Amino acid sequence: MEETFVPFQGIKNDLEGRLKCYKQDWTGGFRAGFRILAPTTYIFFASAIPVISFGEQLERNTEGALTAVQTLASTAICGIIHSIIGGQPLLILGVAEPTVLMYTFMYNFAKQRPELGHNLFLAWTGWVCVWTAALLFMLAILGACSIINRFTRVAGELFGLLIAMLFMQQAIRGLVDEFRIPERSDAKLIEFLPSWRFANGMFALVLSFGLLLTGLKSRKARSWRYGSGWIRSLIADYGVPLMVLVWTAVSYAPASSVPKGIPRRLFSPNPWSPGAYDNWTVIKDMLNVPILFIFGAFVPATMIAVLYYFDHSVASQLAQQKEFNLRKPASFHYDLLLLGFLTLLCGLLGIPPSNGVIPQSPMHTKSLATLKHQLLRNRLVESARESMKNNSSLGQLYGSMQEAYHQMQTPLVHQQPSDCGLKELKESTIQLASSMGNIDAPVDETVFDVEKEIDDLLPVEVKEQRVSNLLQSCMVGGCVAAMPGLKLIPTSVLWGYFAFMAIESLPGNQFWERILLLFTAPSRRFKVLEDYHATFVETVPFKTIATFTLFQTTYLLICFGITWIPIAGLLFPLMIMLLVPVRQYILPKFFKGVHLQDLDAAEYEEAPAIPFNYPQEGEFGARTSAVDAGEVLDEVITRSRGEIRRTCSSRVTSTTVTPSRDVRSPRLSMNAYSPRVNELRVLHSPRSAAREPFSPIVPSSLGKSPRK
Amino acid sequence: MEETFVPFQGIKNDLEGRLKCYKQDWTGGFRAGFRILAPTTYIFFASAIPVISFGEQLERNTEGALTAVQTLASTAICGIIHSIIGGQPLLILGVAEPTVLMYTFMYNFAKQRPELGHNLFLAWTGWVCVWTAALLFMLAILGACSIINRFTRVAGELFGLLIAMLFMQQAIRGLVDEFRIPERSDAKLIEFLPSWRFANGMFALVLSFGLLLTGLKSRKARSWRYGSGWIRSLIADYGVPLMVLVWTAVSYAPASSVPKGIPRRLFSPNPWSPGAYDNWTVIKDMLNVPILFIFGAFVPATMIAVLYYFDHSVASQLAQQKEFNLRKPASFHYDLLLLGFLTLLCGLLGIPPSNGVIPQSPMHTKSLATLKHQLLRNRLVESARESMKNNSSLGQLYGSMQEAYHQMQTPLVHQQPSDCGLKELKESTIQLASSMGNIDAPVDETVFDVEKEIDDLLPVEVKEQRVSNLLQSCMVGGCVAAMPGLKLIPTSVLWGYFAFMAIESLPGNQFWERILLLFTAPSRRFKVLEDYHATFVETVPFKTIATFTLFQTTYLLICFGITWIPIAGLLFPLMIMLLVPVRQYILPKFFKGVHLQDLDAAEYEEAPAIPFNYPQEGEFGARTSAVDAGEVLDEVITRSRGEIRRTCSSRVTSTTVTPSRDVRSPRLSMNAYSPRVNELRVLHSPRSAAREPFSPIVPSSLGKSPRK
Repeated sequence: MEETFVPFQGIKNDLEGRLKCYKQDWTGGFRAGFRILAPTTYIFFASAIPVISFGEQLERNTEGALTAVQTLASTAICGIIHSIIGGQPLLILGVAEPTVLMYTFMYNFAKQRPELGHNLFLAWTGWVCVWTAALLFMLAILGACSIINRFTRVAGELFGLLIAMLFMQQAIRGLVDEFRIPERSDAKLIEFLPSWRFANGMFALVLSFGLLLTGLKSRKARSWRYGSGWIRSLIADYGVPLMVLVWTAVSYAPASSVPKGIPRRLFSPNPWSPGAYDNWTVIKDMLNVPILFIFGAFVPATMIAVLYYFDHSVASQLAQQKEFNLRKPASFHYDLLLLGFLTLLCGLLGIPPSNGVIPQSPMHTKSLATLKHQLLRNRLVESARESMKNNSSLGQLYGSMQEAYHQMQTPLVHQQPSDCGLKELKESTIQLASSMGNIDAPVDETVFDVEKEIDDLLPVEVKEQRVSNLLQSCMVGGCVAAMPGLKLIPTSVLWGYFAFMAIESLPGNQFWERILLLFTAPSRRFKVLEDYHATFVETVPFKTIATFTLFQTTYLLICFGITWIPIAGLLFPLMIMLLVPVRQYILPKFFKGVHLQDLDAAEYEEAPAIPFNYPQEGEFGARTSAVDAGEVLDEVITRSRGEIRRTCSSRVTSTTVTPSRDVRSPRLSMNAYSPRVNELRVLHSPRSAAREPFSPIVPSSLGKSPRK
Repeated sequence: MEETFVPFQGIKNDLEGRLKCYKQDWTGGFRAGFRILAPTTYIFFASAIPVISFGEQLERNTEGALTAVQTLASTAICGIIHSIIGGQPLLILGVAEPTVLMYTFMYNFAKQRPELGHNLFLAWTGWVCVWTAALLFMLAILGACSIINRFTRVAGELFGLLIAMLFMQQAIRGLVDEFRIPERSDAKLIEFLPSWRFANGMFALVLSFGLLLTGLKSRKARSWRYGSGWIRSLIADYGVPLMVLVWTAVSYAPASSVPKGIPRRLFSPNPWSPGAYDNWTVIKDMLNVPILFIFGAFVPATMIAVLYYFDHSVASQLAQQKEFNLRKPASFHYDLLLLGFLTLLCGLLGIPPSNGVIPQSPMHTKSLATLKHQLLRNRLVESARESMKNNSSLGQLYGSMQEAYHQMQTPLVHQQPSDCGLKELKESTIQLASSMGNIDAPVDETVFDVEKEIDDLLPVEVKEQRVSNLLQSCMVGGCVAAMPGLKLIPTSVLWGYFAFMAIESLPGNQFWERILLLFTAPSRRFKVLEDYHATFVETVPFKTIATFTLFQTTYLLICFGITWIPIAGLLFPLMIMLLVPVRQYILPKFFKGVHLQDLDAAEYEEAPAIPFNYPQEGEFGARTSAVDAGEVLDEVITRSRGEIRRTCSSRVTSTTVTPSRDVRSPRLSMNAYSPRVNELRVLHSPRSAAREPFSPIVPSSLGKSPRK
């Protein structure tokens, strides 16, 4: 993306790009059929549960001025509008933790001013939203999102990890509170006797760890050995929602022997209780706000605008990373403009505004990639089986599979320049075909294991459409009506779910992986290379990785610490924004350019593409064959949200070529097979070649790069 | 072993064999130094914790006639005597669940007879032990253990699984009881209020699952990525004991906010409390037992004798399986004779007798194999490093390593005929050396990764000695004195430990693995072949495996059901003994001989050895390189307690040669490297060859064997 600051130019480009695929956004979604429900349900739970919990938190913090009804309503309204007229439909909108923190700070401020107080709090936040919207309009029109490329990995991932920490903090705090008497409760109730409080706390531990552990297990169901394919698939797709139901059911198991309040359950007024909809008429009160405070609202508004500008763009960016191979264009400028309108709307309705959320947005893309993989796979397996019935040769078989693949491709007017997937499928099939001997002989299943081979061939692609986002937003809206049902869920299940989301957001975050690398025993570092891994592991000296990671960790802890400071906590988005100049002007003084590029590739400082032929980009190390459906993909995607090296891109980000270059693994397993590797390795060290491709060379190359 | 029934012949042979290595049993143990403490502590906990718990169980069941003091004393006394003058020092003795069941039945019987009652119960059991001892003497002298080969895998593993089920049942029952008021307690205590009872139960869930999950995780510490080598090693060696301490500490965390009785802790009278040592003088009362009951004692004695004969021999057999490559001879006859003496001694002392226990005995051998592996490895790595310093060639390097290996070998007068390890090390080093190119060029660590290569080369060997057994027995004895300390352990930690032991005993049990195979999705069965696996998986049709497993499962459930019937429960050892004729005469009518042999190899019906050259017994599938110390071994041993195919043995157990024969994996990775495999596989299907060796062929060969 060019950095153009011509007013309206960015918005115009975005609109043009997205309009071209607008129809396909809907048809493609509906064509997926009932399968679209898997990612929809998954994201619905990931979206609704935190929003409900944030609503509860807001209710406590604002003494009932805002509740889960308002947060759910905001998430649903903004989500529906965004999914229909938004730019990037992969982006999930919701009321996020930073918004809750901001509203809490604002409430504490308003409460102390006699001119505002509890009554005019919402009216005042209405003004804050008005200013925020104005600022967002300005940013969108002036093309502020052009500098999205300066929000490099270092900032995005730090923010992602901060969100994960806030989620985890919420989980732990929630669990600890299960042992305490909640605020604003009648301490004389039977369930607040010390014995029942202790019992409640212990029960909460059981429920939340139960949800967390079974939830994490169920996500890996596709690679289980037991149970038939569709059960495994069902559990992997719907396991987490299912576990919420299961553990809610478990929470009722001892109902006969415990008082009614144990375990504690979600608390929220029903949307039809009196007073629960005061906020919807807040617009009437807005003119009662003293003029000083109307202008004073500009101060928090700048904070929120900066926060939203950053949060929205980063969420969108993380949902559209390179390795997802998205075909449809991004829409940062237009989405920011729309966010301005949504903020204005929410402000006038007296509900907290929504913005693009992490980790839900990247989770959404991941789940859609799994969906697309399943769809593609089913279609190709079908076509391959049909071919085999007709006694086709291997050449014909692949021909028909390629045709089927072509048919499945999004028929876009606006075709992205790099259609890697397609090219790679073709290359790899041809080479595979020729290596399997006679390309013209008829094939059967003993020679060609359809399901397995197809899994190997398929590139990562995402089912880009608007249906899942619209559906999940509607379901979130449905939660407002289903409030009596939601109240059955124990709060402890919620805390477990928070911990689950925090943990789910970690894999693929290179910052997190670098932290883990610091704790990896030197003798075990080669294991990192055996998995999918980011470029920097091979090209940057360990000491540099360590320094960079320590710097980032310190910065993260400072940001985290700032969220704890009552009023100064408002500054935390600024701290993250500050990372942009730090990254651009300060970090290059301490780190070599090539290393920085590998650790934190920023487009503005990228070296020109050097064509470099990896001579033996072979098959080693990729242990993903013979696995079912989305399993390959689960791994590819979760392990590699970061920038991963692919043969399709000829860019070499660093010139520190280590000796391990010749045994590098093909991360996305799409490339040609070269028998030479095998032979070379056999000569080199036959035992280990057949077993663990990297081991003999890598430990030394990791620790001490030749350039160090 | 021949089936010879000449009186005393077996005992004489055993004594001769073991006397030859008696001195080495001690010197070898002491030479291992402090490292011997790892297996010792591991087995001590595995031995003491169930014994304490069985003691508690006995105390409830016998109304205090027997307590944990008595069970610990019996285990310690028998263990010390056996470790010093016993035959097979790998065998662990202890008071076992079947003994507890028997004693419970006997107590219930005695209580109902006015002639015996509570007072003469122990005196009467003294007579039972006298008769049992007499029967055991007879069995030992007449060479009953000669037919140990008829106790085939089917019986041994069924018994092993039955024990695991009893352990798991105990764990579940114990946990459920945590929610109830214990028998013989004052129901008016504060901790038995409904609220505290519920709190106690929930706390128990947290503690027991905490112990179970962390215990299972810690056993795998050697393969963790994080932390330095010695920490991982420490955790793997001492993790379970450590976790008992950690969770005991956790149980004190809420001490200030809960009544004293929560969580419930071990209860046992101190050995110095009055009345706790009544039993030691039981011999005085023995003549007060009415003559009718003295003779009547013969009936339970036969049951116990059958049980012990079976249990002791099977425990010994499982501790000495072929794949452990033991060098020292077995000693079934003599050990049974000694067991007779020990039973007599225990009977006269009024304590329940001990016998060889499962799963502790095989656990003992496994932990000693890990120890031996570490010792061997350290020595070889040292010698290799020294060689490399002197700029040796690869040939010289291996020469010096072999010399070191020779030095480490047990210098036995009585050398077992097959010294596989040695031969294989030699062969594989030579072939590896030649395949690595110039055998005379100097080597350095970049070519030859010392630690990794040595892990690959080392065969499975066991540190056979008496020190660990003696030490752990003494530590069990120390528990009697440390009773006040033991009482700090919460009962719930105990239940977690029971579950842990049940789960630890499963891997390697082929019966269990076949049950899992039944639940494995057909499309995933190839995964079984990728791991170490037993012969039958490749040679027996799936339907036969399923039928055989269902038969065995039914039999297991019947045996398990019988333990629930109050008095008829005495019959359960008979049920298991009955399996011997069932296996010998009935099963062959329903299953083909070759299949039975692979599913349940029995020496008496083995086909003569047919020399069969596996042409490509190559390197595929063994993913054990480049891993640390005992990790390889942990896997080899836990995955392969069953009969696994090794190149060293030329016996072919079945003639149903499936097409997958050519890609069979070398389970103990000790055999020659043949580059042909690689080439063949490359021609066949290069992608999968490099990644997943078995996949393309195996699924079909598993489901439908050509012979079916």
